[in-house]
Amino acid sequence: MKNNNNVTRFLQAVSLAAITVVSLSAIAADKVYRLKLAETWGTGTPILGDASKNMARLANEMSNGRLEIRIDSANKHKAPFGVFDMVKAGQYDLGHTSSYYWKGKVPNTLFFSSMPFGMMSTEQYAWFYRGGGMELMQEVYAPHNLLSFPGGNTDIQMGGWFKKEIKSLADLKGLKMRIPGFAGEVFARVGASPTNIPPGELFTSLERGTIDALEWVGPAFDLRMGFQKVAPYYYTAWHEPGTETQFLVNKRKWDSLPKDLQVILETAFRVAAFDMYVQAMDANAQSWDTMLKENPNIKVRDFPEDVMDAMRAANKALLSELTEKDEQAKRIVESQAEYLKKVRAWTDISAKAYLETSQAK
Amino acid sequence: MKNNNNVTRFLQAVSLAAITVVSLSAIAADKVYRLKLAETWGTGTPILGDASKNMARLANEMSNGRLEIRIDSANKHKAPFGVFDMVKAGQYDLGHTSSYYWKGKVPNTLFFSSMPFGMMSTEQYAWFYRGGGMELMQEVYAPHNLLSFPGGNTDIQMGGWFKKEIKSLADLKGLKMRIPGFAGEVFARVGASPTNIPPGELFTSLERGTIDALEWVGPAFDLRMGFQKVAPYYYTAWHEPGTETQFLVNKRKWDSLPKDLQVILETAFRVAAFDMYVQAMDANAQSWDTMLKENPNIKVRDFPEDVMDAMRAANKALLSELTEKDEQAKRIVESQAEYLKKVRAWTDISAKAYLETSQAK
Repeated sequence: MKNNNNVTRFLQAVSLAAITVVSLSAIAADKVYRLKLAETWGTGTPILGDASKNMARLANEMSNGRLEIRIDSANKHKAPFGVFDMVKAGQYDLGHTSSYYWKGKVPNTLFFSSMPFGMMSTEQYAWFYRGGGMELMQEVYAPHNLLSFPGGNTDIQMGGWFKKEIKSLADLKGLKMRIPGFAGEVFARVGASPTNIPPGELFTSLERGTIDALEWVGPAFDLRMGFQKVAPYYYTAWHEPGTETQFLVNKRKWDSLPKDLQVILETAFRVAAFDMYVQAMDANAQSWDTMLKENPNIKVRDFPEDVMDAMRAANKALLSELTEKDEQAKRIVESQAEYLKKVRAWTDISAKAYLETSQAK
Repeated sequence: MKNNNNVTRFLQAVSLAAITVVSLSAIAADKVYRLKLAETWGTGTPILGDASKNMARLANEMSNGRLEIRIDSANKHKAPFGVFDMVKAGQYDLGHTSSYYWKGKVPNTLFFSSMPFGMMSTEQYAWFYRGGGMELMQEVYAPHNLLSFPGGNTDIQMGGWFKKEIKSLADLKGLKMRIPGFAGEVFARVGASPTNIPPGELFTSLERGTIDALEWVGPAFDLRMGFQKVAPYYYTAWHEPGTETQFLVNKRKWDSLPKDLQVILETAFRVAAFDMYVQAMDANAQSWDTMLKENPNIKVRDFPEDVMDAMRAANKALLSELTEKDEQAKRIVESQAEYLKKVRAWTDISAKAYLETSQAK
């Protein structure tokens, strides 16, 4: 009896220990982390909206179901430009948006999307990952309980659709153009009248002459807007040579995740970003082909040299004003300028030379 | 006593069941998959050698230690160009190498690294992931029990170092140049004498005039080779506008992995590939800057138009010979040509136009 009691107690102990191990193991391996993501885009937005879906699927599959990410489009949360605040406050854990939307709130967020006369997408990725860009971006976001990661590139954005050809700087005087943000400020400095108009009214405004010109994105996004039907001059890029979107993360939430899930998320961000860039390039190529077939009268034009010179000077002056007042802005702008100088010298003898010489004349 | 015996038996049963559950759970969640990777590169090769290290680290961290990948450099396995056979046979589970090395064995592997006058790296990624390239590549590798994934891009490769300037096609006649592979065949068709020389003898051969010219990779790899000291003319790209390396996978091994580890591996391949491209671009930019500072006499030249025309024609003729005999080759070459036509039309009005107009003259 004594013996038997001992055996019973031993087995009880073993059994309890075993049950405890099972539970701990189940917690560690199977706990599901449910995250909520708010995106700036409306439901069903192609390319931009595909990035977070792709990211969420990869994170779920790589974590064997331990990461479940619910995506709310702007139609759901009703605050396309509230993503920064909602993720900062923890109302959402993640966001998919773009950094320059927050310049009114945190001025130095301006520098992490795309800058006029700045780096193209791959050059900018090299700056982010190899040239100190990521560190500067985290420095800007850290005081707001946020982490920021590249979220996918739209590819080069075109200079926009114009009803009349721009032959010299004089043709820009008083020109009414939809061009928001920092690029709009540059445009204003060279004598034009930048304005912002809701997307749904753009075509009619252009058609009726309320505006003389507008920039949107590139062929992939411009095609279905129909601008090419009423403004045949399509100008090449200057203001957003490689616009990067952004995954925003609530830092407290991030810190609460196990290390392997952090690496899974960060890798999913990175692949989704890269995939979006590839998707945008493909969609631009396909859409440009379609656009030209449907509208053979589209005329692609570079801005004249005096226009480019004036816009470059205005851009430089505006940047100086920003960096004079702000040590952090100065470091960011200098880092970008130094990196651009080096990487562009290489791009010039590699990609540029190849594009200029490899095709039959 | 009876009662006690029953309790004992019950507890024994519970305890065994619990121990069984613990073991099963440990197997499912904690089984470590040890994979072996053979790379074509020697120990410590920068950039190329970093891709598989980066991939292995990511796969290990994302799987919380369940994927352990051992990397053997060519110094270890002694068969840099045996990677295809070793992975096919299961001697290694994975390889990091480049597709065109296998053209002697499986001719249509030629098309998945880089082709003369072909797509640049980002254009080619768009073809792989959005234009049917991945499907064609798997079709070529499937009969060999292999899967192939893009493994990272070297960025555009330069046309090479020449001791004398090439002023017209006549200057290529009899020119002795180290340029192996398909590009060497193109070069032979226009009258030059392509040759292959082991890397360790390249500098001396060029210095002593055993050869008149050579191509290697780009500034990042060329810098420490020192060619710039003895051959000042650096020609721009034509033959490898975006050379992609390759992760090879033994398909039977792949099929034996749990789904989440397959997704983790595939994602790690993709991020490592993208990182290598970004790293190569950064290293090219930094190395080109250093090279020019140390050797201000380097003269960057485009090949004259008659040389480019002749090489383009020779390339076309060689491709025709390959596709005449082989229906699969024909489909691959046509897919690439059609994709290039569309994507380049877009690159021309976006990247090319931006590079030509955005910088002060």
